[in-house]
Amino acid sequence: MTAYDQNNIFAKILRGELPAHRVYEDDNALAFLDIMPRAPGHTLIIPKNPARNLLDVAPADLAHVAQVSQRIARAGMKAFAADGITVQQFNESAGGQVVFHLHVHVIPRHDGIAMKPPASVMAKPEELTEAAEKLRAALKDA
Amino acid sequence: MTAYDQNNIFAKILRGELPAHRVYEDDNALAFLDIMPRAPGHTLIIPKNPARNLLDVAPADLAHVAQVSQRIARAGMKAFAADGITVQQFNESAGGQVVFHLHVHVIPRHDGIAMKPPASVMAKPEELTEAAEKLRAALKDA
Repeated sequence: MTAYDQNNIFAKILRGELPAHRVYEDDNALAFLDIMPRAPGHTLIIPKNPARNLLDVAPADLAHVAQVSQRIARAGMKAFAADGITVQQFNESAGGQVVFHLHVHVIPRHDGIAMKPPASVMAKPEELTEAAEKLRAALKDA
Repeated sequence: MTAYDQNNIFAKILRGELPAHRVYEDDNALAFLDIMPRAPGHTLIIPKNPARNLLDVAPADLAHVAQVSQRIARAGMKAFAADGITVQQFNESAGGQVVFHLHVHVIPRHDGIAMKPPASVMAKPEELTEAAEKLRAALKDA
């Protein structure tokens, strides 16, 4: 498999070189909003350690990312009064991956509302700021 | 959230009341082929303990399912000479869930080949038998 690229945009977010609407952070994982959400509250959960994707991530980091994803999913249900959650995780270009640092998509869903196509519409900054606040508040109460 | 339904089809597979093309099994998880694969080798990984979906699963069971999914993904890359892996996990009807026992979809992908629509074509039994054999062999060598 191709080696980890230290200059992918999520590595830059982890190093603080690029901004992000941060939702949750601990020693081993970071959650932030997708700037081209497929639905409001669309969040990405990543390990802090370098990992290209599911195929090379350390099992302990994977377990932690999964558990943080669960917390984000529960918070998304509450923060957006969602009816369900769609989780996606893409590996290599053939698998749908665009940024080569492992990330889990957690997408709040509502009955009868389709997701937008991937990477189709850039959200307004104020919408992202509000969505991140809602998720952080829901996580605090959880 | 709705309570766990002991009569969902994956509960019946776990109890041995329905057949499945089993790929991997341990004390806490089972992996078997989707009978309506979106691509050859499409595998479902489930916890043995009852869990409706990501929203109610015990964190330890979730971590284990994620780690088994990683092993299945690596085996899928090898067994099908895949170029990538798409992972999906659906929660509640609005999130795309049809069977209400937590399951992770691990789908081997090839460059330029789209996935079939969900639950569109029932695979031939001999294709599933062969795919399960390939995955079990790849897991053994891994």
